[in-house]
Amino acid sequence: MDTMEMMKSMSMGSMPEGMAMDMDMMQECIMSMNACQMASMMCAGQDMMMADMEKCTAMCMDMADMCQAGMGMMMRPAGYDMAAMMAMLQACMAMGAACMAECEMHAGMSECCRYCAMACKDMMMKCEAMMASMSMA
Amino acid sequence: MDTMEMMKSMSMGSMPEGMAMDMDMMQECIMSMNACQMASMMCAGQDMMMADMEKCTAMCMDMADMCQAGMGMMMRPAGYDMAAMMAMLQACMAMGAACMAECEMHAGMSECCRYCAMACKDMMMKCEAMMASMSMA
Amino acid sequence: MDTMEMMKSMSMGSMPEGMAMDMDMMQECIMSMNACQMASMMCAGQDMMMADMEKCTAMCMDMADMCQAGMGMMMRPAGYDMAAMMAMLQACMAMGAACMAECEMHAGMSECCRYCAMACKDMMMKCEAMMASMSMA
Amino acid sequence: MDTMEMMKSMSMGSMPEGMAMDMDMMQECIMSMNACQMASMMCAGQDMMMADMEKCTAMCMDMADMCQAGMGMMMRPAGYDMAAMMAMLQACMAMGAACMAECEMHAGMSECCRYCAMACKDMMMKCEAMMASMSMA
Repeated sequence: MDTMEMMKSMSMGSMPEGMAMDMDMMQECIMSMNACQMASMMCAGQDMMMADMEKCTAMCMDMADMCQAGMGMMMRPAGYDMAAMMAMLQACMAMGAACMAECEMHAGMSECCRYCAMACKDMMMKCEAMMASMSMA
Repeated sequence: MDTMEMMKSMSMGSMPEGMAMDMDMMQECIMSMNACQMASMMCAGQDMMMADMEKCTAMCMDMADMCQAGMGMMMRPAGYDMAAMMAMLQACMAMGAACMAECEMHAGMSECCRYCAMACKDMMMKCEAMMASMSMA
Repeated sequence: MDTMEMMKSMSMGSMPEGMAMDMDMMQECIMSMNACQMASMMCAGQDMMMADMEKCTAMCMDMADMCQAGMGMMMRPAGYDMAAMMAMLQACMAMGAACMAECEMHAGMSECCRYCAMACKDMMMKCEAMMASMSMA
Repeated sequence: MDTMEMMKSMSMGSMPEGMAMDMDMMQECIMSMNACQMASMMCAGQDMMMADMEKCTAMCMDMADMCQAGMGMMMRPAGYDMAAMMAMLQACMAMGAACMAECEMHAGMSECCRYCAMACKDMMMKCEAMMASMSMA
């Protein structure tokens, strides 16, 4: 059994009034944030050993922290709140856009950057899909 | 010397083009996020020992994680990005509104909730002030 | 390409004097800590919606935080320090033992607890293998 | 009211059998870990903008993560476990020793490093005092 399978057994408790979410999309969003967090932590750890990579180091760490906050919020159904969830997804997407753009500039010389840019892009797509699936009843 | 004093010695490096920030406001925002993170971690730790407090537990943990992400972003000047910073502040304010509302409901019976609600409110005000101080040149 | 593959491209920089590590073992340890962190965050999020599960909620959150600290340390080769690494691995193993024991008590009624106990156990084994591979020259 | 005052209202629930702790010492330990986390996050954010400071950057981030894990464990009384608590304190002290030594090397040229070294030292002392206060009944 792996993490994704496990997640299917998650109970969502009772959703807040007016909040609807596609659980499959949320699970894919969590998994993508996890991959993005791992990629950006790894990337930051490598960047700091290279010259002139402080912007990439900082952005990758920011990205990792935002993913941690995002995963936490999605994995705690008891606290689901529509406005907070939306704003968190927006923040992850904005950070993802900035981190991806920075990492792409170094993708030719650094495998970590190349991978991190891909992971950011996937995470942004999953956030967008999840936002689209959320709706006020 | 305390943390706030120390922060005054922080170098901001070179700001990204078009980004201006009031450093005093940012430092106050960091300190307020730190107080909010401490309050919400403490509150979550207490909530989980009480019956029917799962919503408060979850929201306080979400709040703490968002503050961690927010402080990290502000403390790493090399990665400053206007859009990501704005979206992060918005997410902290949205989470703060939800967490404050929940904690206020228990403020009469729990000192931790009362304090956490106050900390959320202060943090939201500091985020708002900081956002107002940011401007595209 | 997945995270594990990516990790093979990580550069370790120059190891501190007297520190030797088996990189494959460290990568497996990172992956296991990640699975453990995901499992324990998920478990905590579910526990708090059940009555009388505050001990499990708290321990799972402690476990998740320790895994985060452990992964971070391993993913930042520039800061490798023998004594700190050993102590961190010990702390992860001690927390893993406590969290596994607690989760096993609820494994019959909660899929999340059952999975989390397994993830703790695997993480503890990977930490132990990594410690055994570390040696002073 | 400040965080330290607030903490005095924390309920410890029922301590695990055989575990005794001096609550004042634990509260001071939490406050010191918080100061240490803030100092090390700030220090890492500054280090990465300087050349040849990757070891300091990495160690400060490791330090911040360990403090986060330590504070979390202490702020969640429902999960108190003697062995895990001891091992966590040991890990914070080991990381503190490494981070302090590194920061002290740059204390002359960097206010952040000077402050971080002081914060590490204080945290180590508070961890040691807390460990000494813990005892098996």
